[in-house]
Amino acid sequence: MGTARVNHDLNDHLNTTMNPLDPDEFRRQGHLIVDFLADYYQNVEKYPVRSQVEPGYLRKCLPKIAPYEPEPIETILQDVQKDIIPGLTHWQSPNFFAHFQCNASIAGFVGEMLSTGFNVVGFNWISSPAATELESIVMDWLGKLLNLPTSFLFSGGGGGVLQGTTCEAMLCTLTAARDQMLNKIGRENMGKLVVYESDQTHFSLQKAAKIAGINPSNIRSLMTTKSTAFGLSPDSLRSAIQSDIKSGLIPLFFCATIGTTSSNAVDPLGPLCDVAKDYNIWVHIDAAYAGSAFICSEFHYFLHGIDGANSFSLNAHKWFLTTLDCCCLWLKDPSALIKALSTDPEILKNEASDSNQVVDYKDWQIALSRRFRAMKIWFVLRSYGVSNLRKFIRGHVKMAKHFEGLIAMDKRFEVVVPRNFAMVCFRVSPLMVANANQKLLGEEDANEFNSKLLESINAAGRVYMTHAVVGGVYVIRLAVGATLTDYCHVNKAWKEIQEHAHTMQS
Amino acid sequence: MGTARVNHDLNDHLNTTMNPLDPDEFRRQGHLIVDFLADYYQNVEKYPVRSQVEPGYLRKCLPKIAPYEPEPIETILQDVQKDIIPGLTHWQSPNFFAHFQCNASIAGFVGEMLSTGFNVVGFNWISSPAATELESIVMDWLGKLLNLPTSFLFSGGGGGVLQGTTCEAMLCTLTAARDQMLNKIGRENMGKLVVYESDQTHFSLQKAAKIAGINPSNIRSLMTTKSTAFGLSPDSLRSAIQSDIKSGLIPLFFCATIGTTSSNAVDPLGPLCDVAKDYNIWVHIDAAYAGSAFICSEFHYFLHGIDGANSFSLNAHKWFLTTLDCCCLWLKDPSALIKALSTDPEILKNEASDSNQVVDYKDWQIALSRRFRAMKIWFVLRSYGVSNLRKFIRGHVKMAKHFEGLIAMDKRFEVVVPRNFAMVCFRVSPLMVANANQKLLGEEDANEFNSKLLESINAAGRVYMTHAVVGGVYVIRLAVGATLTDYCHVNKAWKEIQEHAHTMQS
Repeated sequence: MGTARVNHDLNDHLNTTMNPLDPDEFRRQGHLIVDFLADYYQNVEKYPVRSQVEPGYLRKCLPKIAPYEPEPIETILQDVQKDIIPGLTHWQSPNFFAHFQCNASIAGFVGEMLSTGFNVVGFNWISSPAATELESIVMDWLGKLLNLPTSFLFSGGGGGVLQGTTCEAMLCTLTAARDQMLNKIGRENMGKLVVYESDQTHFSLQKAAKIAGINPSNIRSLMTTKSTAFGLSPDSLRSAIQSDIKSGLIPLFFCATIGTTSSNAVDPLGPLCDVAKDYNIWVHIDAAYAGSAFICSEFHYFLHGIDGANSFSLNAHKWFLTTLDCCCLWLKDPSALIKALSTDPEILKNEASDSNQVVDYKDWQIALSRRFRAMKIWFVLRSYGVSNLRKFIRGHVKMAKHFEGLIAMDKRFEVVVPRNFAMVCFRVSPLMVANANQKLLGEEDANEFNSKLLESINAAGRVYMTHAVVGGVYVIRLAVGATLTDYCHVNKAWKEIQEHAHTMQS
Repeated sequence: MGTARVNHDLNDHLNTTMNPLDPDEFRRQGHLIVDFLADYYQNVEKYPVRSQVEPGYLRKCLPKIAPYEPEPIETILQDVQKDIIPGLTHWQSPNFFAHFQCNASIAGFVGEMLSTGFNVVGFNWISSPAATELESIVMDWLGKLLNLPTSFLFSGGGGGVLQGTTCEAMLCTLTAARDQMLNKIGRENMGKLVVYESDQTHFSLQKAAKIAGINPSNIRSLMTTKSTAFGLSPDSLRSAIQSDIKSGLIPLFFCATIGTTSSNAVDPLGPLCDVAKDYNIWVHIDAAYAGSAFICSEFHYFLHGIDGANSFSLNAHKWFLTTLDCCCLWLKDPSALIKALSTDPEILKNEASDSNQVVDYKDWQIALSRRFRAMKIWFVLRSYGVSNLRKFIRGHVKMAKHFEGLIAMDKRFEVVVPRNFAMVCFRVSPLMVANANQKLLGEEDANEFNSKLLESINAAGRVYMTHAVVGGVYVIRLAVGATLTDYCHVNKAWKEIQEHAHTMQS
């Protein structure tokens, strides 16, 4: 190939392609979107919180194939406003009290923008040393703030990693525990491994166990009751373990929860870890929602006994302002994780990894590729400072307490389980339902009434809450945690609840 | 609790907390970061491509604990410039020719901004109908563009889903295949399941298989040779399967690759799928890198035989401008995936899901929570249009061809394997190395010479490439694919390579 041909190719390219990272156009479109989103936050209360579209609505609005010619950003943004926003359930609305929140913030957003803008793939140290090192540093910062034992921090021989979600953290720790055990007892015993949880544990654990090849009939979902506020009794755990051992099975893994999804129940870590220790079981603590509260010392008593656990995780995207997704996982013995998940292909060989002086986070998670999530945590911690972050958490807890106070003043309603954090589980009490139905009826009718009440509130679109069933009781969950929520929104939600209940009762 | 107390709480909150989503401050900081990133792209060529920091550099720059008081965004951004940027390996540099690229674009970036800004958690349809519906629509759009068989599209009874990475896609499809098989033959046969790959398959498959509980000694990594350009021979697959069946094992899953990481080899899909069909094995096609090229018809012949596969995935964050992370997975029979991964907890019960009229993507992936990734694909397809996206891919392929032409003009160098897409595997030829060493030596010396040459080039920081070893031969990989790369950068890389080789040889 001669020089002439080379030059021809050159001109051909320059004349016909666009530059998808042209700095001026980047600036123009970036500013447009920042303003679009600022306007969105300003107007978010105007939209129904839960989307009101019908299944299949969007297929009717969009063409059947991708466009051949480029379209201007202005046109696309008009379509976002016209076709996408009506189909959103507005998680950033201050009137969103459903599930647990996924709270956004300016710091989390700009951290994500930088991470997306640099767009590095931090699978090993050399692929972007800053991504790895900042992650190790902020995981130690945050671990200290949460009052985790030093043994969970890099500075104490353990270590932390950022993953996408708790499901991943559960799958990774379970795989580490599984392989550690199978290396001792032989792979042929895979079918004998048993995983323990309570009937309040998040369903992610069962899913993770299934993916990891644990026999579904070896997952023990131990019953909890109202008498222990739906925390798991250490005696239940011990007798389940003993019974399995008698049957020739092998206890492997136990997941304790601080702040369950249904009712914010807290398992008693100390006594449970003591039981687990007797049988050499891996203990993972799932504090997906409530974990962020441990930056406030008044919640530290829930962590009592954590020294006996092997791993601990929380979702910073729930209540720590980082935006989705950002799950923080700490382990006492990262080497168990690394042994289970490490790979050492020729194509990634490099001096730094060979020297064993660096962390290669690809060996701490399922995937090879990984985003620069540490940026978001770093921005949140620095932009707000520990002082404001504590105020933020305490503000939500106080609002939930305030809501409890409102319920206490209306005898039609009752709080069903004690409040531990910023979520209140309540219902219209069976007695009131019986009165409304003009006959004395039981729990089932109360459940049906409350279910209809919730649907009536959510369909109106001014407030969004979700439900749970604990101990057979249908409860409405009011979770306070959206970034923009203030007392006025809690008061408005309460008024809305009262009005819908009134309409249904009359 | 009386009204007075309620009001007290109210004032208490308003007086002491910040608003982390204040629209005016959002606007101010958002604009700052857009400008910061636009400047970064303008200056990205000034930084060494591969970071030159030493392990542990960042711990020396940052405090040991998180700050108690908030810090202004301007201070944090100064630290990004001073402490973070030197620790980045600049994946968006036009001189980044390493690994496969992770290409950013304005459309991908603004799509990610909107997704992060709305910050919805689209686990099921009702949690944000637009997130689910847009995903199904763009997966059909993209599948059609790639010329996938209709059976992989929603419109043809199959369907597509967006996950984070290929590792996840492999783990999910493998789990689906595993559970489908175990439901037929019984869980006690778990230890007999066998997974097939070639010795060129990405190491993610071995990792996924380990996580899914496949016995590591049941992973067959079948040898490929230069004679088939490192594509897997169907005869090898058949004899491996037959040998396993003779030993009482159960063939389960085969992963074919289009565009391997080491050398862009392509497995012959048609004949391989025919073999797999004879034994009822799940075939997954990993086109992580090369898949995006199928929007151009000149590459469609590589897809011949895909009808026989069960699933197909590509990483849109590699060569389709979406930014990390965005893996597209299509399946002929999503119900196998859903059966393996579905969960139906009380807390997520809702009318739309109960009606079976909607897709609940939580049952198509490992995690519950999921980001609104479809926004990025939608923005990329619309902002550039199919016409420009084809030019973008073809531009890179032409540049790689141009680089091949440059190599052909210098007899010291040789292209080691045929180029299929936009990556060239080359080296200084053994004859030249022998001359430089003033003695006739073999492949080992050539490998060592080329390894030192690559390190010398990368250490200089003006260009970044990585290596592979194929068939015992150490090759330097020049992968063209960064968004900002143009002919001048390829020419500069070539000059750099020649100069370093010259210095080492003299």
